Amino acid sequence: MDKIVLDGNVVAQEIREGLKTRIEKLKKNGLIPCLATILVGDNPASETYVKMKGNACKRLGMKSIRVHLPEETSTSELVETIKELNNDNSVHGILLQHPVPPHIDERTAFEAIDIRKDVDGVTSTGYGQTALGFGEYPSCTPAAIMKILEHYQIQIDGKHAVVVGRSPILGKPVSALLLNANATVTTCHSRTSNLPEILKLADIVVAAVGKPEFIKGSWLKDGSIILDAGYNEGNVGDIDYKTCYEVASAITPVPGGVGPVTIATLLKQTVESAEKYSV
Amino acid sequence: MDKIVLDGNVVAQEIREGLKTRIEKLKKNGLIPCLATILVGDNPASETYVKMKGNACKRLGMKSIRVHLPEETSTSELVETIKELNNDNSVHGILLQHPVPPHIDERTAFEAIDIRKDVDGVTSTGYGQTALGFGEYPSCTPAAIMKILEHYQIQIDGKHAVVVGRSPILGKPVSALLLNANATVTTCHSRTSNLPEILKLADIVVAAVGKPEFIKGSWLKDGSIILDAGYNEGNVGDIDYKTCYEVASAITPVPGGVGPVTIATLLKQTVESAEKYSV
Repeated sequence: MDKIVLDGNVVAQEIREGLKTRIEKLKKNGLIPCLATILVGDNPASETYVKMKGNACKRLGMKSIRVHLPEETSTSELVETIKELNNDNSVHGILLQHPVPPHIDERTAFEAIDIRKDVDGVTSTGYGQTALGFGEYPSCTPAAIMKILEHYQIQIDGKHAVVVGRSPILGKPVSALLLNANATVTTCHSRTSNLPEILKLADIVVAAVGKPEFIKGSWLKDGSIILDAGYNEGNVGDIDYKTCYEVASAITPVPGGVGPVTIATLLKQTVESAEKYSV
Repeated sequence: MDKIVLDGNVVAQEIREGLKTRIEKLKKNGLIPCLATILVGDNPASETYVKMKGNACKRLGMKSIRVHLPEETSTSELVETIKELNNDNSVHGILLQHPVPPHIDERTAFEAIDIRKDVDGVTSTGYGQTALGFGEYPSCTPAAIMKILEHYQIQIDGKHAVVVGRSPILGKPVSALLLNANATVTTCHSRTSNLPEILKLADIVVAAVGKPEFIKGSWLKDGSIILDAGYNEGNVGDIDYKTCYEVASAITPVPGGVGPVTIATLLKQTVESAEKYSV
């Protein structure tokens, strides 16, 4: 059996190529697509992510605004900042970097984002629209996973997909997108009592659990397709790559798998939002 | 093993009893909780449902408004009617009876319902809030299923629930509620290739497929808990009751199972909405 390493850099490149002429067209009309990122506090990993997103904008000739708020920012101060960006016509997408410091009510902050600028699908309305099948901006990592499957022409319809994780911006929306693509979908999580037994049934596995090298190859069905959305310290994902590689028919590496496609998707959805402004 | 028939009439009665003093209190403050139902066209089953809901309001001393629109109503006319009810301060809940005639864009109509009056959880925002765990009014049939499980003290945490069906007001939200209650959840549907194999793993089965007597007892695990949300011509549900009864440890009958609890839940959520108006 041919084994495919699902190369996120190739997929991301394809997305970026598709954006170039669209960005040029917008610019000719005097409009520069702009992503605003908000970082609260000094989590070094989050700082890196935000920087990567800003740099990715720059490389494509897009604008980015980086708002960096101090650790002690209150929920209402954060909401105030979000509202200012909602009202700023030069901003087309708003990304609040997750996680925020624990004293902040992250849900309240997410909900403050204008649905038209919710390019990472974090609001409940954005999530609901995605799950019901007509959302404009799904959460970027779930959308990236679907894009990788599409790029490599992996059949989803009628397949059994098992998602490990149920976070609002990853496990839940990727379950919803796979379901809408006609997979039978099982969502597992920390309270799942028989994870290896369930994974043995999976044609497609999405690891979104946030635990380094958690999922072992011995738990998986031979020939399964594995998408690793985890990114943990030491540059490892949520799957035990070596043993999973052995059984997989297709697998995303970490790094170079889901990550770059997530960022490219964020740019794409920001450009789409800008295009709606320009009409 | 003791077999339990999950009696929806008992659960519904309990809900209604809990509402009586709340309704009295509202009335003392000059406020009568009011549900508006909208029926488009002349589907006899839908007429019956709407009548049942209106009668249920009456029996509890609640008000109900029945809007009956002709078959040829357009989407925009329906949306106009919904907006009028949104703006009517005497109305606390709006229920658009599903299904609407095929020429109407049901989703557009559902989305027109003010979230504060969306007591059947049909809007994408209502669905998203439910799925993310902070929704005020989940879709009534899913909420009824959860209430039955709660009433009969059936453990959900750590169990494997299999939902057959993925509609926006039934399969999807009941999957979401079960997931939030810490079940491992598999959502199956018409494209699921190995339904009996998956059902064999289920501790809890929710039938929400809309096909009479579709699910057979031989597909199920011994001792499984079966909730039948179907209601088809001939007063039969989505499960083959006789054979499923044999293997179940607990089972809802049709009629007298999920149905009455759904209606009681609708009243309860309308009363909750009225209480919010009164503060």
